[in-house]
Amino acid sequence: MRGLGTRTVLYQQNVATSLGLYNHDFISVDILREKGPITAGELSKLTGLSTGSVTALIDRLEKIGYVRRQNDPSDRRKVIIVPQYENKEEVSNTYLPLHTAMIKLASTYTPEELDLITQFLGKASTVLEEQIHHLSSIARSKSSS
Amino acid sequence: MRGLGTRTVLYQQNVATSLGLYNHDFISVDILREKGPITAGELSKLTGLSTGSVTALIDRLEKIGYVRRQNDPSDRRKVIIVPQYENKEEVSNTYLPLHTAMIKLASTYTPEELDLITQFLGKASTVLEEQIHHLSSIARSKSSS
Repeated sequence: MRGLGTRTVLYQQNVATSLGLYNHDFISVDILREKGPITAGELSKLTGLSTGSVTALIDRLEKIGYVRRQNDPSDRRKVIIVPQYENKEEVSNTYLPLHTAMIKLASTYTPEELDLITQFLGKASTVLEEQIHHLSSIARSKSSS
Repeated sequence: MRGLGTRTVLYQQNVATSLGLYNHDFISVDILREKGPITAGELSKLTGLSTGSVTALIDRLEKIGYVRRQNDPSDRRKVIIVPQYENKEEVSNTYLPLHTAMIKLASTYTPEELDLITQFLGKASTVLEEQIHHLSSIARSKSSS
């Protein structure tokens, strides 16, 4: 699990570098891709970044066309961040070799085995999300004391 | 898989922040912990960082006592980087809540299921390692052209 974690981090850093992005910027785009449009406040919570850092990050990403700000159609007082990078060919091209290799790996398992693995990955994901909240709340209480 | 990847990256960034380390420095310590003592050249290959960046990184980590340089006992012309941070209480304390939560998650599976999951994680790890080499070799050929 930890070996996979280390390699995941390194892989993402290499993807970010090859796209010419800061690593943190890139991860935020990835969260938006997964969660869909969310507010800056929600992005701050999910990344553990301060709201100031998130504002600067959205500015950078908007400038290069990876996201755009938009009024929330369901609540016009809110501004949501809409991911735009799915259509960017450089992004999908960068991920393609990993995608292909992972599909090849998955094809060596039965549907029942893949179910079990997917379920485990989902639960491990939830555990990590809780741990991120835990660490960032400790960091916040330290910096405010 | 991608959702877990994103959270892994964010988790590691939050761990690095809470230990007051640069994220890349932290990941390198983590690789050393997994691989054991290796040379700067090997660390460069595993992280996708240039040899110059790796030298600066080892300097920073040596200064705060996370690693030390040492002559390789089996080949005295070689210098290896020895991880030192296992004994650091701040590191183990930071990881403890994740460790506990993951053991709790693992305990809900049978030994056979855990075998399958572990085997999958190992293979996914290898796939990612190959992809890191792939991306960093593209980056190198770009920067040298």
